[in-house]
Amino acid sequence: MNKQQGSKNLLTEPFIKFFRGKNFAFLGTVNKDGSPQVTPTWIDIVEKEKEKEGEDHEQIILINTAKDRIKQKNVSKNPRVSISIVDEDNPYSMITVKGRVIEQTTKGADEHIDKLAKRYLNADKYPAHSPDVKRIILKIKPEKIFYIPPRYTEYLQKNK
Amino acid sequence: MNKQQGSKNLLTEPFIKFFRGKNFAFLGTVNKDGSPQVTPTWIDIVEKEKEKEGEDHEQIILINTAKDRIKQKNVSKNPRVSISIVDEDNPYSMITVKGRVIEQTTKGADEHIDKLAKRYLNADKYPAHSPDVKRIILKIKPEKIFYIPPRYTEYLQKNK
Repeated sequence: MNKQQGSKNLLTEPFIKFFRGKNFAFLGTVNKDGSPQVTPTWIDIVEKEKEKEGEDHEQIILINTAKDRIKQKNVSKNPRVSISIVDEDNPYSMITVKGRVIEQTTKGADEHIDKLAKRYLNADKYPAHSPDVKRIILKIKPEKIFYIPPRYTEYLQKNK
Repeated sequence: MNKQQGSKNLLTEPFIKFFRGKNFAFLGTVNKDGSPQVTPTWIDIVEKEKEKEGEDHEQIILINTAKDRIKQKNVSKNPRVSISIVDEDNPYSMITVKGRVIEQTTKGADEHIDKLAKRYLNADKYPAHSPDVKRIILKIKPEKIFYIPPRYTEYLQKNK
């Protein structure tokens, strides 16, 4: 199996497609009792603004959740996350990103969930806005990437 | 949001479809450094044989992995797992099962991966058998189920 590990530019091929399609990310966090938690979620990635001229660009993964959801509470205690995404065109191609929540912000979070709803649902606005739900963006710094290129293509073709 | 929690019969509707389709399960475990790990995997479910007459049937989730894979090493240290599956017909319908690996066995594991390859790939045999890989079935006892019925159907219809 051809695997690639280490730090990569997630905004280039073959990685970028995992963050631009309609496929869900499965976010792993750790509960306060030490058990694991996995939640399907929409996902986004952006280039972080450079703080100084000449600095390398840095990519930040964004997950839009709500205050007091299990994953938000978990990452507030233990910021380490694992994100698994399979390719919608070939689910045997996959990426896993280990990373860390470096910031949580409510700023722009309502607009950001609208943007994700457009991409994932083709909805003009996120259909589940509620005054009782305070949306929060989790900003995740990728630390380790594990990628598997497409496999079993001949079987998937045959089963179409 | 209509949520159902608690212990349920996973071999009945609406739960059974998550374990019989081609959708992957995303298995969450905890690494030895306390960080989370998520891996996409094939999944199966069986009825455990009754040990005594009159006993309730018990369902066991089966995940077929290989010796020394990260998930196998993780559950050998910390048997708690979280399994997340989205419905292939409506990814906004999902099930999360919290559970515990109660047994690991190599017995029947090669035949079992062939059975899964038939279901997922329509292959006569698992295409990646290797003498260097010792397959192992993880037997998981479900402890807590969280289910979300289909949502956003109108958007999914419109985008077809």
